Order: sequence, then C-alpha cells, then structure tokens
Amino acid sequence: MDNTDDDCPLLLQDNDSNHDGEVVSLLSEADERGMKRSSSSSGSLHHVVRTYESRELSVDVQSADEQKLDVENRISNIRYKKSADYEALDYDTIENELHGEEERKMSSSDWKWIQFQRWIICMLIGIMTGIVAVIINICILELTAVKMHVVEQAIIHCVKNRCLFVPLVLWIAINVVLVTVASLLTVFLAPVAAGSGIPQIKCFLNGVKVPNVVRFKTLVTKVIGVIASVSGGLAVGKEGPMIHSGSVLAAGISQGRSISFNLNTRFFKHFRNDREKRDFVCAGAAAGVSAAFGAPVGGVLFSLEEAASFWNQALTWRIFLCSILSSYTLNFFMSIYHHHPGDLAYPGLINFGKFSGSYEGFELPIFLLMAVFGGLSGAAFNAINHKITVFRLKYLKAKYFKVLEVVFVSAVSATIAFVLIYWNSECKPLGQDPYVRLQFFCNDGEYNTMAVLFFTPPEESVKSLFHDPLGALQPLTIVIFVLPYFFLACWTYGLQVPSGLFIPSLLIGAAWGRLVGNCVNFIWPDDIWAQDLSKYALIGAAAQLGGTVRMTISLTVILIEATGNITYSLPLMAVLLLAKWVGDYFNHGIYDMHIHLNKVPILPWEPPALSTNIQAREVMGTPVVTLRTVPLVSDICSVLSDPRNCHSGYPISDSEGKFRGVILRTQLLILLKHKEFVERGGSSERIKLSVFRDSYPRYFPLSVINVSEGEQQCHVDLRPFLNPSPYTIQENASLPRIFRLFRALGLRHLVVLNDEHKVVGMISRKDIWKWEHKEKQHDE
Amino acid sequence: MDNTDDDCPLLLQDNDSNHDGEVVSLLSEADERGMKRSSSSSGSLHHVVRTYESRELSVDVQSADEQKLDVENRISNIRYKKSADYEALDYDTIENELHGEEERKMSSSDWKWIQFQRWIICMLIGIMTGIVAVIINICILELTAVKMHVVEQAIIHCVKNRCLFVPLVLWIAINVVLVTVASLLTVFLAPVAAGSGIPQIKCFLNGVKVPNVVRFKTLVTKVIGVIASVSGGLAVGKEGPMIHSGSVLAAGISQGRSISFNLNTRFFKHFRNDREKRDFVCAGAAAGVSAAFGAPVGGVLFSLEEAASFWNQALTWRIFLCSILSSYTLNFFMSIYHHHPGDLAYPGLINFGKFSGSYEGFELPIFLLMAVFGGLSGAAFNAINHKITVFRLKYLKAKYFKVLEVVFVSAVSATIAFVLIYWNSECKPLGQDPYVRLQFFCNDGEYNTMAVLFFTPPEESVKSLFHDPLGALQPLTIVIFVLPYFFLACWTYGLQVPSGLFIPSLLIGAAWGRLVGNCVNFIWPDDIWAQDLSKYALIGAAAQLGGTVRMTISLTVILIEATGNITYSLPLMAVLLLAKWVGDYFNHGIYDMHIHLNKVPILPWEPPALSTNIQAREVMGTPVVTLRTVPLVSDICSVLSDPRNCHSGYPISDSEGKFRGVILRTQLLILLKHKEFVERGGSSERIKLSVFRDSYPRYFPLSVINVSEGEQQCHVDLRPFLNPSPYTIQENASLPRIFRLFRALGLRHLVVLNDEHKVVGMISRKDIWKWEHKEKQHDE
Repeated sequence: MDNTDDDCPLLLQDNDSNHDGEVVSLLSEADERGMKRSSSSSGSLHHVVRTYESRELSVDVQSADEQKLDVENRISNIRYKKSADYEALDYDTIENELHGEEERKMSSSDWKWIQFQRWIICMLIGIMTGIVAVIINICILELTAVKMHVVEQAIIHCVKNRCLFVPLVLWIAINVVLVTVASLLTVFLAPVAAGSGIPQIKCFLNGVKVPNVVRFKTLVTKVIGVIASVSGGLAVGKEGPMIHSGSVLAAGISQGRSISFNLNTRFFKHFRNDREKRDFVCAGAAAGVSAAFGAPVGGVLFSLEEAASFWNQALTWRIFLCSILSSYTLNFFMSIYHHHPGDLAYPGLINFGKFSGSYEGFELPIFLLMAVFGGLSGAAFNAINHKITVFRLKYLKAKYFKVLEVVFVSAVSATIAFVLIYWNSECKPLGQDPYVRLQFFCNDGEYNTMAVLFFTPPEESVKSLFHDPLGALQPLTIVIFVLPYFFLACWTYGLQVPSGLFIPSLLIGAAWGRLVGNCVNFIWPDDIWAQDLSKYALIGAAAQLGGTVRMTISLTVILIEATGNITYSLPLMAVLLLAKWVGDYFNHGIYDMHIHLNKVPILPWEPPALSTNIQAREVMGTPVVTLRTVPLVSDICSVLSDPRNCHSGYPISDSEGKFRGVILRTQLLILLKHKEFVERGGSSERIKLSVFRDSYPRYFPLSVINVSEGEQQCHVDLRPFLNPSPYTIQENASLPRIFRLFRALGLRHLVVLNDEHKVVGMISRKDIWKWEHKEKQHDE
Repeated sequence: MDNTDDDCPLLLQDNDSNHDGEVVSLLSEADERGMKRSSSSSGSLHHVVRTYESRELSVDVQSADEQKLDVENRISNIRYKKSADYEALDYDTIENELHGEEERKMSSSDWKWIQFQRWIICMLIGIMTGIVAVIINICILELTAVKMHVVEQAIIHCVKNRCLFVPLVLWIAINVVLVTVASLLTVFLAPVAAGSGIPQIKCFLNGVKVPNVVRFKTLVTKVIGVIASVSGGLAVGKEGPMIHSGSVLAAGISQGRSISFNLNTRFFKHFRNDREKRDFVCAGAAAGVSAAFGAPVGGVLFSLEEAASFWNQALTWRIFLCSILSSYTLNFFMSIYHHHPGDLAYPGLINFGKFSGSYEGFELPIFLLMAVFGGLSGAAFNAINHKITVFRLKYLKAKYFKVLEVVFVSAVSATIAFVLIYWNSECKPLGQDPYVRLQFFCNDGEYNTMAVLFFTPPEESVKSLFHDPLGALQPLTIVIFVLPYFFLACWTYGLQVPSGLFIPSLLIGAAWGRLVGNCVNFIWPDDIWAQDLSKYALIGAAAQLGGTVRMTISLTVILIEATGNITYSLPLMAVLLLAKWVGDYFNHGIYDMHIHLNKVPILPWEPPALSTNIQAREVMGTPVVTLRTVPLVSDICSVLSDPRNCHSGYPISDSEGKFRGVILRTQLLILLKHKEFVERGGSSERIKLSVFRDSYPRYFPLSVINVSEGEQQCHVDLRPFLNPSPYTIQENASLPRIFRLFRALGLRHLVVLNDEHKVVGMISRKDIWKWEHKEKQHDE
C-alpha cells in the first residue's frame, strides 16, 4: 500500500509555510536582492516574478525586512493553517520528452496490454473488496452472538438472584473493551481511519491529497476498528467504512507493490501516478458501496458523483464490473456462511428485507410531509454534531482525551440501553417478531421489544422496524428508543473510531417513520393500505438519511437497490429531493460540514455565483518563483530549501523570460538525487521514466540529498523533463473559466501568462478555495 | 420552437466551402494580396496568418492562382463534404464586457430568480414530455384496436366464405395508408425525424448542430409519424422517438418562444444560448427515457452518459426531477385511461410486466452463453443494416423513392405476417395466454399464437414472450416468427419514418431467449427452476439489445427499472457487458454506425491511442483569418462574404499582432445589422446583450444586411463584444491535451498561440475529427 506523506521538508515543522502556489501577500524591498524584478505593465496590477539565476539568494541572507515579511505571512496565513496540511493530487499528465519517447517505442499491442491490465486490476479490486466485506460481516456476527449469549445468561441468572448490576457491568465491560481496541488503533495507528471515511474519499476523488488516506495501516485500523465499534454497541454502522476500505484496497492493488511490506512486484508499474491511481480508487469506492448495500449501480453512481471530472465510458464499464464482482463475491461467501450456497439473497452488508407491498397515490402527501420532517430532523442532527465537533477540535486535542471520550460514550450508550430495556420492559410472546428472541427481563416464552432495538446489531434493528407487523412494537417503546438514540448517534459521529452514519440515520428515520405509520393507522384503522407500516418506516429512513447526508442521485439508487423493490423508486426520489432542500436551507450536509471544519480545500460543483468579473490576476499567487531551462544546481537547491517556495511546481522561463513549461518539485528532487548534471554527461545516459514512477508516491525530502560543494556549480538540463505545454491562462481570464478548467480537468496548478508569454502568476486549487472562503467570510 | 439553420450564407449553395476553422491546405502567391503575411519562426513549421486590414481584398480580386487553389481545396475537402453540413454548438460562454456589465448589475436575488426559473422549466419539460407520451400511447392503442377489429371481422367472415385475399388486402391497405402518412411527413416536412432520433440527440449533446433536430416541425413529424408507423405494423418501437420528442420539447420550452408560431414571451430570455439550451435538452432526453421505459434513473444516466462534459450536481438534480415528473405524469393519465385512477402501474410506455421469479447461481453460465450469442446476433444485425444503409445512401436519393421503399416494406411486412399466421395456424384454447384473444383462422374459443406475436402492438408481443406459461407458445412458432422478423427489423431501421429500435431488438431477443428456455426445460424437465421461461426471455432480450445498441450503464439501469425486479440486476449487467464486448469485436453499435455513415464530426470518449507525440501545429487549421480590434466595416464584410472564411469565429489581434480575443461570426452579423459603428457614436448607446440573445438561434445571412458605400469606411469597435480570454493552447500542446479540453469543456474552437502571443492557428472539433478519420483510413 502506499503513502501520501508530505514531500516538503519544512512543512512538517512549520505549518505556516506556503505551498502549492500560495500567495505571498506583501512585497518588501528585500525581495529585490537575489532576484530580478520583471514587471509587466500590460495589466492594471503590477506582477512580480522572481527568477533564480545565481547563488546569491541563500537562506542565510535574510534581512530584518524579510523576517518581518515572514511574520506577516505567518499571520495572514494562520487562518488557512489547516488547509496547508493538504496538498493537491496531480491529475495532469506530464507530457515531457521522456513520455513522448516511451510512447514512440510502444506498439499497439503494448497499449492493449496496458488496457487489459486495467481490467484485471478492477476485477481484483472487486473480489478483494467483497472478501474484506465478508470478513467484517462474519466477525461482527460472531462477536455479537457471543456477547449477546454471555449477557443474556447473566440476566437470566440475575433476575432470579437480584444481582442486576452484574449483567450491566458485564455488558459495559465487554463494550468498553471492544471499543477501546478500536479507539486505540485509530488514535495511535491511523487517525485518518476515524469516522465513516466518506468525507476523506470525497476529498481524495476531488483532488486533495489527504495524508495517509489510502495506506495499508489505515485499512487495518478501519477493518479491525469497525468490527470492534459495531460489536461494541456504539450507534454506528459498518457501511461507510466499507467504502473507505474498498478505496484503500484499490490504491494498494493498482500499484502492484506494498511499501509497508517492502514488496515490489513487476506488475502494474505503468499505473504509478496520481491520475491512474485515482481511477482505480473510484472503482474501489464503487466496490465498497456495492458490497455495503448490495447496490452495484449505486456504487458506480457514487464514484461518478464524487469523482466528477468527465464521464469516461471505458472507465465506467470497469467500475461497473468491479462493483458487480464485489457484490457477487460477498453474496457467494455469505451464502456459504449461512448454509445456503448458491443462494443470491445476500448481495450487501445490509439487507432491507423483502418489501412486498405497494402504496396508493394519495399517500404521497403524507410521504412529502415526512420528507419535510426528515429534512428538519437531519438539519438538527447536523447542527448538534457541528457544535460537538467544534468543541472536540478545540478542547479534546490530547490523544488520551480522545480515547477516554470514546470509552465514556461507550459506557453511556450501554447504560442508557440497559436502563431503557429494564425500565420499559414491554414483553411480547415469542414468535410475533420473526427476527430475534431476546428474553431479558421478560418471562419465559416472551421477548423484550426494547432489547430488539438496542441489543441486536443495528442492521437487524432496522429490519425489525421495517418489517415487524403492526402490533409488534408499541409506539411508546419506539419513542423511548428514538429520542436517546438520536443524541447518542449525534455524539458518536466524529469519535476517534471508524463509524458509519448510514445505519444510525436509517434507524432513527425508520423509528419515527413507523410512528407516523402508527398515527396513520390510528386515523384510518379500517383501511388495508394503512395496515402496512413498512412503507412508512422506509420513507422515514430515506427522509432522515437525505436530511443528514444530502447525497444525491447515488443515494436514491442505493436505497432503491437495497430495498429491492422498484415500486418505491418514485416516492423515494421525491422524498430524498425534498429532504435535501429542507435541510440545505439550514446547513450543509454532514460530510461537507466535516470537510469544511477540517478546512480541506475541496472545490465545489460550480464556480461562485456572479464571479465573471473576477479575473485571474485577482486570484493568482504572486510573486512566482521561476527557474531557467538549464539552471545551476545551487539555484535548484535554494529554491527547494526556501520555505516560502514550498510549491508543488515551478514554471520554467528561457533567457528572454518566455514561458517554457512547468517542472514539479518531485521531479527536481529526483534529478538532484540521481545527479543528472550536464557536466557529468547526463543526457547520454539519461534517467528513464521508470525512475520517476518508482519513486511514486513516497518522495524523499531535500535533506537526504547530498550535493557536494563542487556539484553546486553544475547545471541541470531540465528541458527533457519539464512539461512543455501545460494548461495556461491569460491574466484577464474570468474566475468561472478558471474554475471550470480546474474542475473538469482535475488540475493542480495553472500558470498565468501575460501577452508577452511571460509568467505573471500561478493559480492553485487553494487559491480558488481561499478566494471563495474569503468571500464567504466577507458576506457573513 | 427553434431553429438550427446554418447561418453561413454560402454554405447552402456550396457544401465544399470551409467553415469552423477548416484547413486551407495549400497557399498560393495570391494570398499575399490584400493580406499581410506574418510568419512565426518559433516552430518547426511556418504558419501564416492572414489579417484583413484594408478593403483591398474583395471577392472579385481573385487571380487564376486563387481559383486553382479553390479547386484544390474543393478536391481535398470532398471527402469531408458531408461533415461540412454540421456546425458545432457554442458551449463556451462569451465573457465580454457586456456580459460583465450585466452581471455587475445583477443582484443576488436576480441570480436566485434565474436559478428558480431553471427548476420551473425542468418541471414543465417533465410534465409536457409525459403528456406527449400519453398522447402517443393512447393514439397507438386506439388505432391498433380499430385495425385489429376490422381485420379480425374480415377474417372471420372470409374463413367461412373462402375469400382470404380480402382481409390480406384490407390489412395491407390499412398498414400502407398509415405508414405512407408517416413517410410523407418525414420525407417532406422533417427528414431529421426519421429513425429513432437517438443518434441525433447523441450528436446534439456531444456538441454538433444537427440541422432542424430540435424544431417544432420535427416534433410534429415525430409524434404523428411514430403513431402511424407503429400502428401501421412496421417492426418498430415508440421508445426511441419518445427520447427525441422530449428533447425537442425541452429546447422549445426553455427558450420561452416559438419562432414557428411567431410567439415571443417575456419568459426565459436568459436561456437563449447553446450552453443553456443543451442543459435543458439533457433534461428533455432524460424525461423521454423516463416516459418511454418508466425509468427515471435510467433517464438521468442516459443524459449524463451522452452529454458527458462534467457532472454538475445542481443540473443532475434538475434532470432527476424532470424525469420523475415525466414518469408520474404518464402514470397519472394512463391510470385514468385504464380506469384505475391513482394506480401506479403504468410508469412507462413499455411495461415488462411483473417478474416474480428468481434464478439459481448455476444458471449464470447459461446466461453468459446467451450473452455471447446476443453479441453475435447484434453484430450480424448491425452488419446487415450497414449494407442496407449504404445502399440507401447510394441509390435511394430521390424523395419519392424513399416513400416508395417505406410503402414496399410495409406491404412486405404485412404479407409475411399474414402468410405466417395462416401457414402456422397453431391454435390454443383461449385463456392460456392472459394477454390477447386473437381468433384468426382458429376455431371458436381458440386463439392463434402466431397472431399474438405478429398482430398485437410489439410491446404486447414482448410481454407475451416474457410471461406466457411454459406450453403457451410452441418452439416452432417462435422459430418461424423470429427469423423473418429479424430481417424485417433490420430492413426497417433506417427507413424514412420515425422508428425505435429498442422494441424490435427486445422482441427478437425475447424470442430466441424463450427458445433457449425451451431447450433448458427439455434437458432438465423435472427441475422447478427450468420451468420459468421468463428469465431466459429477459436475458435473451437484454443480450440482443446489448449486442445491437451497445449502450452501457444507462441501458442496464433502464432494463432493471423496466423489469421492476432488482433480483435480475446482476445477471443483466453481466450479460450486457459481455454482449457489448462480443459485438464490439466485429463492428460499432448501431447508433454509432449511423453517425459514422452520416459523417457527423462527433468526438469519441477518449483521445486517439498513442497520440501524445502529435502536436497542435499538426492538427490546427491554418492560415487563420484574424481581424483588428477596430476594423473597417468593409473588412468585416470581406471576411464574412469570403466563402473560404465561413468560420464560426475569428481571432482578434491588436496593431502589434498580439492576440486580443475571439469574436463569433454571428456577433459580427448583429453588429453590422445594428450599424454599431464608431463614427455613429456607437458606444454611447451601445447595443445590449439582450439583442444578441434575441437573435438566437435564427441568425440571418450576410445578404440581408445593407451597408451603404459610405458606411463601408466606418469602423466597428469590437472590444466590448469580443471574448477577451477564451481558452487557448500553445502550438506544441499534445493532441490528448487538446482533446481533453474539447471534450471536457464542450469547446467549439481553440486558438493556437505561439510564444509571442500571436495567433498561429485555430483548432475546431472538425480538425480533430478529421485527424482521427485520416488516421483510421491510413491504418486501414
């Protein structure tokens, strides 16, 4: 599996440093020392380009003025501190001479072989994701069964012997132990594995390099963590984490090596770059959705919706195949586990059960009212979770605090559940609920309805709420269940454990949906259509989910596929749409909310409204550090070691100042490491493209490169390595135009040229993000 | 509704002229007269830019050399003659000063009002599309019922009186009359309404202006034509035409006016440009799919798949709502028509009936074998249709020939059906088939099985094949039906009538699928799973459809939604994928085949393989006609009237030759018409953006503009109107990079600049298309 560690040596110590073309907002006189100022008078603003030409500028020559400038930068950037943790991914191909040469040597059959490998990789991803889903599923089932057995025995024992604190303590103890395992792993091994992983995957597919998001240790944490936290009785689901797991698997398999295990195969070398990796991560995310919900089409849509860029037909087919295989694999193994080999009833981790009913046209208004309530309820959920998350970010910074919070929540959850089960011990004769038999505090031959809701795995509780016959659950039981569960779920999401949000939302929604069904049944007690509570539970679940996550068309398809009944597609769509509208009136969807709180520079779907009059020159970062086509090694070292130049790429100018291309920081590092100097006869035995690919994605910091005093005077011929014709834009280009380029082509940076073909600025994703951010703050 | 007539005055007489930046491949000495040659030496090739500066160049100054050049151009372009019929659509916003001013004046609530209008329009499109679907559906049902009744009575009468030629003649007469109506309308009113319309909508969404494709007369022809041709017993369906109808409705409604009816409302003025219109046409196409198949999700996917560009979330939601409303509207009215108001069982024109069964895991290999056969059969269908189409294009050019062919096919279809019904008169007692009761040549209380297949509307035949119980249809009946029907369908597609291909393909596939089911039942007669033929019919239908049209993920979803049973999603996906692979080995999908035959310059999904070493300078059109920022009126007239300059846009250079922006041909025409001359104090009462919007899309030719001798000496200040920062590219940019720009952003033309910021060439969609085309010919 691979790495997205930061390659910028100074970044790790200093988060305030600029990278990726960030704006140095003030210019001091000191800038002139060691740089040439070439200002263009064509625009209304003066742009300054710093060109490194000699060794004069070195880090020690820093005047008081420059230090002042640094401090100012630090202050002005402090609000974007968090965003500096995130680099962008490189989705643009570097079409340099090496690339051209490689392609010239490639025959048509080589090309086809590469295409074929893509299909193979996608098939592997699908199968592996299915297997991981099987492992998670079986472990949770087994662990829960053991836990349930132990506690039930203790209760039976203690009801007779009046020692009810024993099962409570036992229950809390088991839960706390399980959850602590999940929490320790998450906090100390891979913090990025916390939560559902959907926001992280959203960011990755959007083009932001979230550190460690697709590493092997993240996968391990995610899998073990989700098993422990679901079995540990937290109000979490295992579906979101499944999507993250699929993505990590995809990133790992597609690279044909594991750096964690120091394993490097000959396979799939061609795919070692951001662009290819993203395509496979799309497939992995789709396979994850497919396995989680048994929804292959929903999986494909999820990937396309989040990865945006443009819809590539061949890629879509591969994602589709990957999704199908994932669902098939899960089904195959689960049917064996359930002793019905060949039965195709287990396409996903969650199964909504069979919806056989239908609905009447006049029920639609009821559904739409439910959608409004779902939107309100979801917005309330998000608002409360926002407060909690802000509190956490502010006060719960120490690692042991984080673990303690998880333990505390786990204990509270168990206690509340236990108390409610005891207090509300509504008992029903066995057989009325087809799914579970939990005696608890009831007499023999009876089961406790509250225990069904609290004590079984959440997927089973959802099923009970969906399908239990009319009288099986008292409305009061549901009310007593749903209120505390709502707050528990709200508190739980954002804890340092892997935790899905789908199931808690479905559970809350199904619960109040069932209550609505009870009301309808109360008003029209004699009508047959009002006897079927399952449709109300389903619509409630959809409304709650739509109000919380606000995902769009893919969510609709996922729900339709999980329901397995196309009849409900129309009301489901209408309800999801309305719930989203209502929710959007109040706040963002929960994933977007967490992305915003983490200040990830994610690009939205559309350019900011009414921004045509904003021009490139107002958004771009300037001054820009440019390099010559054949610079001195010492110049390169100065540029790379200067904390202010910690960009991802540098424009190259020729002696007349004309723009000649772009070179990436990582390429420069590799050229220095391999001592590709003109004086050493570099071009005769020029380094190959494979060297660049092999270094991906774990580039080294500048500090590991030893350049002797003599070598500082050598030159590096950058021409074969630079990208000679990247996308550029004129300085009067409008913001929507720039935005569309970034969004549609997945760019990392864009060079701004004046009408003399000289570099006047660079625009990075972050520049656009910051601009929007400032505007919003200004508006507020 | 609106118009896509060509605005290039000379094009209509001379198809060989260049437009849209086409290459003038040879340069003669005469070029220097009246133009300045400014050649750049930066590249390896010399590029020549012709700049109109004075009135010296007028059309009459054409030397012998120039005439020779013209002839050469004519020859070199003759192979692309057809492609010259198609212009590109403008999806790039013209961000000129007028646009900026308008936006500056716009308040946030204006902006929201525009957004709100988009929703309103999409809702209207959905409802209107549903209503049109209802009209088509009811008309066909009523006409078919009348026809069936008349012919059946005649047969009953003639079986007794031995006058069998009477019902045959009667049948043929009714069919021929109906089909002739369809054909006459198509041939003489709107030839673009022929066929399913899916290839045309594909092209439109891809960015090609297919003349008349979204005009009102096309809608009328389509609706009446499809009613007549389906009722007329041709082997056609009504689903494809529904998609086209939805698109025309969308284009019409979104513009808030109908030029055909000389109606111009105050509404929706903001949306009068190609970019906005395309978005609404997407919604219309989705609504069409939704109404045709009761598949709202499939509709959304169809639009996204064909319109590509990038996935815009707000747009997707609007398309979704439009799809839902379309399906709801159809359902609502059809339930009233069928006397079950409020029943939700009629979501689409075709209804596959209820699939209640399931399948076993071990049946999968059988399904996959069927997929292979479907791929082969589909490829054969396409190959035969290709031959027929080529023959038609070559020999059946006269209009009356086209009508005659339709009449002939109709007569042959009726005769074959009649003969087969008579010959194979397999009779079954009534009640065995739940759908129809066609006595024909059978005794009282019996019905004719072949008549079920041939005589009922094709949707009913598909249903019969899907759901008839095991013994209802003899295998021999099916064999005798499917073989001639295959060839009839093959012959019919491409006739000058509106004709869908989905239903014939489904029918053929369901027929042979049922035969496979019979074989399976013969081999394992005692197994319960082998008793259910419906799954084999369904898989066969999917395989045949996949093998013929090769549509991808949207087709899968459409079939799943139409089946109404999620259980079959996995085998359906696998079968469609495999059938596509097998078919692709032999030829293109039928829609793509027809697009290629019509030489429409459609851009594929991906850049040509191994083309990184192809640079912009090898693809671009040169010389390029440029204008000055403030040219003379006479210069503009010369440029516009020169047949070689019939481009869609012209780059603007300042006095130093620096690139300053792009202006469209249509903008120049409007400026001339409104006499926006500097000498008349133009800028004080400058024409507004609304004038440009109002002229859309029916621009006038140059000939209607009267410019007096004196006005020829005036100047036009183009600066407020030109697009100052369009997307540009450097001359060494690679073909994949250019391709991605075109594909992802929906560009029409791209200006190529050298490193002095001067124009060296223009690349249009056609240039890329031609390059690919040449390469393919070269390969072959």
